[in-house]
Amino acid sequence: MRPDAETVVGVVGLGAMGGRLADRLAGEGGRVLGHDPFGGTTEAERVDDLAALVEAASVLLLVLPTAAAVRGVAAELAPLVGPDHVLVNHSTVAVRDAVALGSLAGTGCRVLDAPFSGGTESAVAGTLTVFAGGGPDALRAAGPVLAAYASRVVACGPLGAGTTVKLLHQHLVAAHVVAAAETVRLAGAAGLAETDVAELLAGTAADSTMLQVLVARLAEGPGPVRGSTRILHKDATLVAEFAESLGTRLDLLPAITRILAGHLGTADADRDIATLAHDA
Amino acid sequence: MRPDAETVVGVVGLGAMGGRLADRLAGEGGRVLGHDPFGGTTEAERVDDLAALVEAASVLLLVLPTAAAVRGVAAELAPLVGPDHVLVNHSTVAVRDAVALGSLAGTGCRVLDAPFSGGTESAVAGTLTVFAGGGPDALRAAGPVLAAYASRVVACGPLGAGTTVKLLHQHLVAAHVVAAAETVRLAGAAGLAETDVAELLAGTAADSTMLQVLVARLAEGPGPVRGSTRILHKDATLVAEFAESLGTRLDLLPAITRILAGHLGTADADRDIATLAHDA
Repeated sequence: MRPDAETVVGVVGLGAMGGRLADRLAGEGGRVLGHDPFGGTTEAERVDDLAALVEAASVLLLVLPTAAAVRGVAAELAPLVGPDHVLVNHSTVAVRDAVALGSLAGTGCRVLDAPFSGGTESAVAGTLTVFAGGGPDALRAAGPVLAAYASRVVACGPLGAGTTVKLLHQHLVAAHVVAAAETVRLAGAAGLAETDVAELLAGTAADSTMLQVLVARLAEGPGPVRGSTRILHKDATLVAEFAESLGTRLDLLPAITRILAGHLGTADADRDIATLAHDA
Repeated sequence: MRPDAETVVGVVGLGAMGGRLADRLAGEGGRVLGHDPFGGTTEAERVDDLAALVEAASVLLLVLPTAAAVRGVAAELAPLVGPDHVLVNHSTVAVRDAVALGSLAGTGCRVLDAPFSGGTESAVAGTLTVFAGGGPDALRAAGPVLAAYASRVVACGPLGAGTTVKLLHQHLVAAHVVAAAETVRLAGAAGLAETDVAELLAGTAADSTMLQVLVARLAEGPGPVRGSTRILHKDATLVAEFAESLGTRLDLLPAITRILAGHLGTADADRDIATLAHDA
């Protein structure tokens, strides 16, 4: 299912991820408008004025790097949106920030929190998984647009539930990345080619998606940053805050967060997570 | 490929794993002799005297729980084995202990270190992965026997290399089990059904074999112990000693080992690793 020709999609945030979503939607033949005061890249049509974008578009996608950016855009959007709009927040924020977007429902605007599993490559390929929280009306209205870049949309529950699942996801991703990086280093010390590790262990009890991803990126060598250590550390911190808000003590996460934090002061911080396999 | 009718296989150690290997080999129609001074269960023919087993069998499988047991059996075997024998050590021990079995090569005996990925269920189904270290002659001689219970035999390198890969494997298994257990607890605290976690995250960047295994066992409820916390802790300790012997500092492993150790004094220690998802 694809967005029909009359649906105009507005993408707010044209960084690596938002830009690729806008490109993919434009490639499907729909009308796509992009907005980003800080630049970003897309082949879709740019609109500098947010009010003009909201005037033209009925489905609004937020693809922003921080909770502060989401809050800022939400405040700008509040007087502009109404019952004809569906707002889809693809940004990873705290659960309370995802739920707070529900205040826009007072204007009649339908709202989804809808973070992704998958990076820019999956966006280009249209194989993202979307963890969606929000009412069935909002999900139905956004569905054809999501289908343009996601191969799977998981209905997780009410607003905030998509973000809850995304945080569980990031807890595992962070653990698997750090474990894979450490295993690759140990393999190297034991005299194995680090890139052999993924193939030796493929399909066994030791396998994980991130093991395969990390080793594949190591084998490719330096390339585009498809997920930075800084972003993974930010997400691990969100998980820690979430657990604390629930009164749940986690034992593994502090070690993971500390290991990621140890790379923040180095050149690795904004490099791909695959660089964690090498000493900072 | 299966062992030919003239190959007699001797299984030393008839615990949960060794017993299932003996059963499976017997089920393939070959002659299988089992030896275990401490009991164990198998439908294969039992031989109380190790010398009598070595006299009759040409392929000897060690399936023992500890390095001490492997060393003890190796000392007993040394004067008994010769060029007609292939010794396959399936037990998980330290790399130096796996390599030490090479001293039997002085008697002409061919030796493999060949730990598994997979538990008793895989043994019954014949879908184990074997990480094999040792010379091509030994691997060729043991191959038809291994094929009776392993769907994949990975030739890892010289004697000790199979154990090296197994320790890398166990490092990841331990990390993935602890991370999965912690994620399931967090999901429960967030109001999700703990058993939903695996399906929500299946196929995403957060997925791992052990996530799926752990949640499946939680969903089944109490059943046979297919991998205990005590054994996983033992293996994690072997990984730590291996890293130390290589002069490699690991940052994540101490946290994992500490979390596993925290369950050793409890009823959980000898229960299935799935119980790590619940408070000790």
